[in-house]
Amino acid sequence: MALTEEKAVASEGDQVKSKKQLKKEEKQSAKAIKKDQLKASNSSNNKEQESSEDVSTGKYGVMAMIQSSENMSSRVFVNVKNLMTALADNSVWIRGRLHTSRAKGKQCFMVVRQQQWSVQVLAVVSETISKQFIKFCSNISKESIVDIKGNVTKTPTKIDSCSQQDVELHIEELWVVSQAANQLPLLIEDASRPIKLDDDQDGLNIKVNQDTRLDNRVIDLRTPANQAIFRLEAAVCKLFRDILTDNGFVEIHTPKLINAPSEGGANVFTVSYFKGSAYLAQSPQLYKQMAIAADFDRVFTVGAVFRAEDSNTHRHLTEFVGLDMEMAFKYHYHEVIDVIGSTFTQMFKGLRDNYKTEIQEVCQQYQVEPFKFLDPPLKLEFPTAINLLREAGVDVGYEDDLSTPNEKLLGRLIKAKYDTDFYILDKYPLVVRPFYTMPDPESKVASNSYDMFMRGEEILSGAQRIHDPNFLTERAKHHGVDVEKIAAYIDAFRYGCPPHAGGGIGLERVVMLYLGLDNIRKTSMFPRDPKRLTP
Amino acid sequence: MALTEEKAVASEGDQVKSKKQLKKEEKQSAKAIKKDQLKASNSSNNKEQESSEDVSTGKYGVMAMIQSSENMSSRVFVNVKNLMTALADNSVWIRGRLHTSRAKGKQCFMVVRQQQWSVQVLAVVSETISKQFIKFCSNISKESIVDIKGNVTKTPTKIDSCSQQDVELHIEELWVVSQAANQLPLLIEDASRPIKLDDDQDGLNIKVNQDTRLDNRVIDLRTPANQAIFRLEAAVCKLFRDILTDNGFVEIHTPKLINAPSEGGANVFTVSYFKGSAYLAQSPQLYKQMAIAADFDRVFTVGAVFRAEDSNTHRHLTEFVGLDMEMAFKYHYHEVIDVIGSTFTQMFKGLRDNYKTEIQEVCQQYQVEPFKFLDPPLKLEFPTAINLLREAGVDVGYEDDLSTPNEKLLGRLIKAKYDTDFYILDKYPLVVRPFYTMPDPESKVASNSYDMFMRGEEILSGAQRIHDPNFLTERAKHHGVDVEKIAAYIDAFRYGCPPHAGGGIGLERVVMLYLGLDNIRKTSMFPRDPKRLTP
Repeated sequence: MALTEEKAVASEGDQVKSKKQLKKEEKQSAKAIKKDQLKASNSSNNKEQESSEDVSTGKYGVMAMIQSSENMSSRVFVNVKNLMTALADNSVWIRGRLHTSRAKGKQCFMVVRQQQWSVQVLAVVSETISKQFIKFCSNISKESIVDIKGNVTKTPTKIDSCSQQDVELHIEELWVVSQAANQLPLLIEDASRPIKLDDDQDGLNIKVNQDTRLDNRVIDLRTPANQAIFRLEAAVCKLFRDILTDNGFVEIHTPKLINAPSEGGANVFTVSYFKGSAYLAQSPQLYKQMAIAADFDRVFTVGAVFRAEDSNTHRHLTEFVGLDMEMAFKYHYHEVIDVIGSTFTQMFKGLRDNYKTEIQEVCQQYQVEPFKFLDPPLKLEFPTAINLLREAGVDVGYEDDLSTPNEKLLGRLIKAKYDTDFYILDKYPLVVRPFYTMPDPESKVASNSYDMFMRGEEILSGAQRIHDPNFLTERAKHHGVDVEKIAAYIDAFRYGCPPHAGGGIGLERVVMLYLGLDNIRKTSMFPRDPKRLTP
Repeated sequence: MALTEEKAVASEGDQVKSKKQLKKEEKQSAKAIKKDQLKASNSSNNKEQESSEDVSTGKYGVMAMIQSSENMSSRVFVNVKNLMTALADNSVWIRGRLHTSRAKGKQCFMVVRQQQWSVQVLAVVSETISKQFIKFCSNISKESIVDIKGNVTKTPTKIDSCSQQDVELHIEELWVVSQAANQLPLLIEDASRPIKLDDDQDGLNIKVNQDTRLDNRVIDLRTPANQAIFRLEAAVCKLFRDILTDNGFVEIHTPKLINAPSEGGANVFTVSYFKGSAYLAQSPQLYKQMAIAADFDRVFTVGAVFRAEDSNTHRHLTEFVGLDMEMAFKYHYHEVIDVIGSTFTQMFKGLRDNYKTEIQEVCQQYQVEPFKFLDPPLKLEFPTAINLLREAGVDVGYEDDLSTPNEKLLGRLIKAKYDTDFYILDKYPLVVRPFYTMPDPESKVASNSYDMFMRGEEILSGAQRIHDPNFLTERAKHHGVDVEKIAAYIDAFRYGCPPHAGGGIGLERVVMLYLGLDNIRKTSMFPRDPKRLTP
C-alpha cells in the first residue's frame, strides 16, 4: 500500500486503527518509500535494477537539490490556473505540490496543486511509461513539490475534485524538486473542508483544531481559503493606501520604540533599551498628530501596533497591523468623517468588484453572508443608537459606553432597519473618551468623536483632537492625567497646529469582519496573543 | 518694534545682543502682543478702544478655537501652490503659516507658507484697512496659522523670496486660527538655508544643528526640503509595492514580537512579555521564507525592523523600515536577482520622472549630484570587484568581506568606469555569509548571494536560501550554530519548499543615498538611535 494512502487512513480513521498500529505501518511504509526512491533514482541513472527493463529511464526521479547550477530556461512552465482546453494536445511543464495520488493497478491518478488551483495528472503504463514510473509516482509523499511534463488532454466529464475541471495532464516526465516529510501534522484536505453548521452530527469529517493549524502554519496557509484570505488582506492594505494617496494623503512611518507609554502605563510592553528602558507604541497617534503639526496636512501609516492586554478573546491580538490616518480640516471634523467614510465605501467596492474569486474561495470553506454597505455610508448620532437599543428593551443610558454585547445587538438592529453591515456612530459622550478628544461646544455631554462598525464590531475609533495646548492641558488635568508626563505631547501643539481629526483601524479585524469569520487568528498570518509567540 | 522682527534678531544675531537683553525684550514684546491681540479682539467685537474709529472692525482678529461648531463651507479655500496669474483680481481664502512679517510705516509685508509653497501678502492702510489691522498683522507670532482673504494681484517684478513669484495677495481679512508661541526653538529660515561648501567662511549664516532639529521635529519638518524628503520616502514605498504587486507579489505582515532572536543572540532587544520574555525581530526573513514554504510564491513586506546595535554612525538606526521581498524560482536564483534589479531600475525611473519637484526642493538646500543608473543595472561578480580594488592598490583578498571604506572606494571606481550609482555584486564568498546561504556548487569559495549598492553603500543584502532541511542542518552545524535553537526555522522546510531567494532593503538608506544626503537621521521622520528615543 502506498504511503500517501496510508496517510489518509492515519488522519481520517482514528476510529479504525490504533495509534500504535498506525505508527508501525508508517515505519514500514517509510522504509518502503526509501527503498523505492532509491530504485527510482538508480533507474533514472540508467541502471537496471528491476527484472524488466525500465522504458521510462531518465523521465522521472528525485532531482538533485536545486543550487542554481544550471538555468533550464528551455522548460517553459505553465501556471496550473492557466491549464485550459485551449492548450489541449500541447506538452507543458508545471511545478506544484502533490496534493493526492492514488495508484490502481497500472494507473496512478494524481492531483497537483499550485496555490488555489489544482489539476489531475494521469499516469498509465504504456510503451513509454513503465511500471516502475507508476510505482514511483504512487510513493511520493503528499505536499512534495514536483515538476511534471504532461500532455494537456480534454476530459470527457468534468473533474469535480480539481479547480481545472475540463483538462488533465497525461504524464511524460516527473521530477521531485522538494520532498515533504512522510508524516504530515495536518492534511490540506482536512484543513480545507467546508465548515457546515451540522458538522458535528457527521462524525466522518475530520476537523483540524486551531492550535494545530497555527502550530503548523506553513502547511495550514496552503489551503485555498487561507491563500485567498491573505490576498484579500493585501488588497485591503492596497486599497486603503491607494484611496488615501489619491486624496492627497502622505504615507509616514512612526517609531514603535518610544520613551513613554503612549496611552498611559497600562497595557504597554517594556523593552530593555541599552542601559535604560523603552516601550512599544500602543498607537501611532502622537506621531500622526505631530506630522499634522509639521504641515503634512493629511497622513496615513500602516504598521505594527502593540497591546500588552491579557485578553484571550476571538478579537484581541497583542500585536496587530494598524491602518491609521490623520487629517487637518478647515472648520468642521465632519470633513474628516466624510473622507474616512468614503474611504471605506471605496474599499468595499474595490473588494467586491476586483476580488470576487478570493471572496468565493473563502466562502467555499466558511459559510459567509455577503457584506452589505450603503453609499454614502449610514451615519447615526450616538443618542439615536441608544434609542434603538432602548426600544429593543436594553437598559442603557445616553452617557454610557456601548458594551460588546450591546454593540453586537445594535449591529443586528441596524442591519434589520437599514440593511447595512457598515455604519458610523458620531457624537460619543465626552465622559467615555480620552482627554485629548474635542468636546462638542453645542452640547453638555457630547464630543466630536466617532466609532465605525462592521457587522456590529468596532473597527475604527476616532475624533477631533484638541489642537490648542492650553485647552489640552486643562482637559488632561480634568481627567487626572499627570501633565508633566505628557509634556512632549502638549508641546507638539505650541508652535501652531491646524484643527485635525483622524482614526485608527485594525487590519485583521476589518478582514475578519468583512468575510464574517469568527476569529481574528484566521486573518493574522502569524498571530500573537498572550499565549502564542510562535511560530 | 514688532515681535516677529525681534525674533529675527534673537535668532540671527547672537553676535549682536546678549541673551539676557534678548530675554528682556522678548518679555516686553510678549506683553505688547497680548495687549494688541486683546485690542484686536475687542475691536473685532465692534468696540472702539483706539482713538480713531477702526474701519477694519470684524475683518481681523484671533478666532475662537475651532471646535466644529459651524461649517463655514461658503469660504472657498485655494491652495497656495495654485495661486497664479490666472486667478488675478479674484478674492480668495488661503490657510497657511505666517512665515515672516515686516511692518514699514503704513504697510505690512507678510509671507504666508503652506507646505513647500509661499506667497506674499500685502496690507496697506487704506479706506478699508485700518492702522490697527496693520499693527495686528505685524504682531502675529511667526509660524501661527492664519486664514487670509485677499485679492490676487499680479506683481510688476518677480518675488524672489516666495514660491509664487508672479502674484501677491492684497489683504481683505485675516484671522489667527492657531497661535504659535512667541519664542521658537528654531526658525524655518535658518533650518531651510542652503548648505554650501564654503558655508563656514561666511559667519552670517546661522545653521541649526541636528539635535536641535530633531528635538523640535514638528518645526524642523516644515522646511521645504523636509516636506520633499518625506514625500519622496512615501514615493519609494509606493513604487516598491506597486512594482512588486504588478509582478505577482503578495504583501504580507510579519510579527515583530518573536520568541527567539532571529539572527542569533547579539543585537536583539528583549521585551517583557507577560510572565516571560520576547524579542524584537531583527528581520522578517524567517517569516518571508515561511510564506514561500506556504505557497505564496512571491511576497513582500514593509515594516519596522529592530537592531540593538550600539552604533552611533551616519547610517545606523536602532529602528528602521525594512522593505523585504522573497521569491520562489524555478532553477536559478538569477531569476530573482533580475526581478530585484528591475524593481530598482523602475523605482529610479519613477522617482526621476514623477517626483522632479520634490528632488529639486531637496537640491535647493543640499548640494546633490543627480542619481545615475543603468538599465538593465550593472551586475559584477565579487572577484571582479576585488580586482578593481587591487588595481587601485588596495590589499584585499578574494575571500575577504568588503570593509565600509573599501565599499565606498569601490563605489567611486565603478562610478568612474561605468557611470552608475547603482550596481549589483553577485557571488559573495561563502565564508562571509550566514549559514542559510546556498553555496555555489560550481565553486569552492563562492555562494549564491549578492549585495546591491547605491553611491558605494550597501542597501540590500540577499541570497538564495537553503531550502533543504538536511543540508540546512549540515550547514548550521558547520557554522557552529546550535541546531536545537533553530529547530523551528529548519522545520519550516520539512513539508516541501521550492527553491527561493530574496533580500532586504533599508528604506531610510535608499532615500538618503538616492538624494546623496549625509545622515540617515535626515530620512527618518522620528529617528531612533542608541542615544535618541524622543520625540
